[in-house]
Amino acid sequence: MTDTKAVAPGCLTGVRVLDLTQFEAGTSCTQVLAWLGADVVKVENPVGGDPGRRTGATTPHRDDPYFLMYNANKRSVTVNLKSPRGLEIVKDMARKADVFVENFAPGAIERLGLGYDVLSTLNPGIIYGQVKGFGEGSPYEKNLAFDMIAQACAGTMSITGQADGPPTKPGTTLGDSGTGMLMAISILAALYQRKETGKGVRLGVAMQDALLHYIRNAFGVTTKTGKPAPRAGAKLVGGGNPPGDIYPCAPGGPNDYVYIYTSRGNPTHWPKLLEAIGRTDLIGDKRYDTREARVEHEDEVDAIIAAWTRQRDKYEAMRLIGAAGIPAGAVRDTLELLRDPDFEKRGIMQTVQHPTNGPFKMPGWPVRHDGNVAVVTPAPLLGQHSTEVLGDWLGMNAEQVAALHTDKVI
Amino acid sequence: MTDTKAVAPGCLTGVRVLDLTQFEAGTSCTQVLAWLGADVVKVENPVGGDPGRRTGATTPHRDDPYFLMYNANKRSVTVNLKSPRGLEIVKDMARKADVFVENFAPGAIERLGLGYDVLSTLNPGIIYGQVKGFGEGSPYEKNLAFDMIAQACAGTMSITGQADGPPTKPGTTLGDSGTGMLMAISILAALYQRKETGKGVRLGVAMQDALLHYIRNAFGVTTKTGKPAPRAGAKLVGGGNPPGDIYPCAPGGPNDYVYIYTSRGNPTHWPKLLEAIGRTDLIGDKRYDTREARVEHEDEVDAIIAAWTRQRDKYEAMRLIGAAGIPAGAVRDTLELLRDPDFEKRGIMQTVQHPTNGPFKMPGWPVRHDGNVAVVTPAPLLGQHSTEVLGDWLGMNAEQVAALHTDKVI
Repeated sequence: MTDTKAVAPGCLTGVRVLDLTQFEAGTSCTQVLAWLGADVVKVENPVGGDPGRRTGATTPHRDDPYFLMYNANKRSVTVNLKSPRGLEIVKDMARKADVFVENFAPGAIERLGLGYDVLSTLNPGIIYGQVKGFGEGSPYEKNLAFDMIAQACAGTMSITGQADGPPTKPGTTLGDSGTGMLMAISILAALYQRKETGKGVRLGVAMQDALLHYIRNAFGVTTKTGKPAPRAGAKLVGGGNPPGDIYPCAPGGPNDYVYIYTSRGNPTHWPKLLEAIGRTDLIGDKRYDTREARVEHEDEVDAIIAAWTRQRDKYEAMRLIGAAGIPAGAVRDTLELLRDPDFEKRGIMQTVQHPTNGPFKMPGWPVRHDGNVAVVTPAPLLGQHSTEVLGDWLGMNAEQVAALHTDKVI
Repeated sequence: MTDTKAVAPGCLTGVRVLDLTQFEAGTSCTQVLAWLGADVVKVENPVGGDPGRRTGATTPHRDDPYFLMYNANKRSVTVNLKSPRGLEIVKDMARKADVFVENFAPGAIERLGLGYDVLSTLNPGIIYGQVKGFGEGSPYEKNLAFDMIAQACAGTMSITGQADGPPTKPGTTLGDSGTGMLMAISILAALYQRKETGKGVRLGVAMQDALLHYIRNAFGVTTKTGKPAPRAGAKLVGGGNPPGDIYPCAPGGPNDYVYIYTSRGNPTHWPKLLEAIGRTDLIGDKRYDTREARVEHEDEVDAIIAAWTRQRDKYEAMRLIGAAGIPAGAVRDTLELLRDPDFEKRGIMQTVQHPTNGPFKMPGWPVRHDGNVAVVTPAPLLGQHSTEVLGDWLGMNAEQVAALHTDKVI
């Protein structure tokens, strides 16, 4: 499967995470903790579970790839949160947990009776994380939000798209996963601190606020110009050092482009590029010799490069330009990436055997620890670990768990 | 300045970070550690320092906002890494450090004599983090990469843009900051683990690999369709539940749009939306009553909504639709966001007093710890803390530091 020794980093062995998340912003956060070795137990509604299981699902009785992507390495327990006994079980689990994470709609967890005031009384050491769309005290704090709403409200759409076209949603679900990663950072820092203090903490992050973290360059542009940062196609929002764009390659498909970039910090990139594309005749030409000159003649510069890239496929163009020491990258699509054996060989993607979906290939945690990657295990079926977890965490025996099933508590 | 009690979370008090990063992928990572309370010391070349100080700079003798955004809360020490004495100083600092982070070009840190084999011998507990463009063992591992190269090669551009347009770069610099956040997570997990084991670790992440983490939904689409995930404008890459798009608002400026989304998980959103836009006549209309029907008549659905949104500005549209319980978000630009007092009031943006740039407003760490945010302090001037840090970390006195200055070692 992989040439890389795939062993879980196990940094968080012994850390128990009580996971009341769904969809992506919360689930991406807790999955990272699972990859790093924590015991993450996902508590789900016995009727259907995390709605993310069926988001976009096209096959009956099978969890959608969307769910599989964000719930690997977790265990699933079903609990009916509307039953008093179910609620008691979750509170008992909270007593045993180090971390609690939820991303319900605003106010929902408190209405369930599982707010921070309640859980921190039961367990003063608990690290309690909440992900919402808008921040506490924001004019929109009670509003529902999903990834695309946050991306609209936080500026990412305004700086994405063609210069003369409409705002465009980045294809990345950064409002969700980008926020989840920031929450994971604060949880880990709080766990570290707790080793000294023993004290828990309430953590909160809003998707709109988190997205600002990822567009700081654009705020820098606005600081300098006093204007909204523009949309710039594939060029840099802040201008940059031409050339810096995607250039069309053979055979002309929708993703047959290569990115070529000359760094402002390295004035040798431009003459090296001219050499790589066989245009040494232009080295020293005053029309193109400085950044300022190339900004002025940017269309000509782009045409010179495109005349060369059109003769080659994107991988050959990337190889030749890259070998000349100039930053270059083929525009790759998701099918090319999923089929590229390189990622599986290095353990960056892994194929899990899912009990109902069969073999499923997905990206794992991309950071290597001493050269090793975490082993990805498949996302759990709904309630797959109820007996196991209620035994591990709460000391129940099989009969007790069976009785809870009969009573529709789990 | 802010209504929120702004106190540093201080989770990482006592953690020393030796920071040899530049530009953004590495600097964004170490800045987060600083926000969370670590003592982050940035080691810079005495001649010019981090090239990020001048990236895009338009004012002589002032650091660019780009630098200020990623180096707040750090201290700066100058050291000439090409002088043997300078190198010894960095090694002495490595003996005292808990964490080391670098993102030089492939092979550069090892050529300097500061590779993991060297530093881990001096300090077996050191957590050594490296950010590169491409992963070890990848066919491109020796290639230079910047954010846009990684975004081309990792698929984010292929899924961003209009359906009939070219690949588009997301305006977010996710190849840089997105990668930096994943490295921060692994560093924090390793710090936690080290409390038990005392052992250090070598961490490595590649920008191309890290970006795959943020487009897992698109890989899920490819898994189901067997095709590359498409570009979809502002709609969802995976289709979704119409309506779900940006709709034009008055007065028709480049960012005068509102995002409106009806969740697949909540079938009441559509009739509620019809009520909110005064089209109760269409409730129950078979042309639009189910997801499948709306997919078939998506253009008509979009036209019905746009007829209403065009009569209002984006904030009013967001308010009215949001109040009806339907996810809605105005498309905001970076100037609107920077001027909105809400973020400063809540401590999500903070204004620092920079010694040469004057007041500078920037986003801080967006996760609240017990309701508080970390205080942002301005990015350091080049070498601002040389005397202080060489005293703190290495016990040098002012005369010894002055002699190093004279000898051009620092």
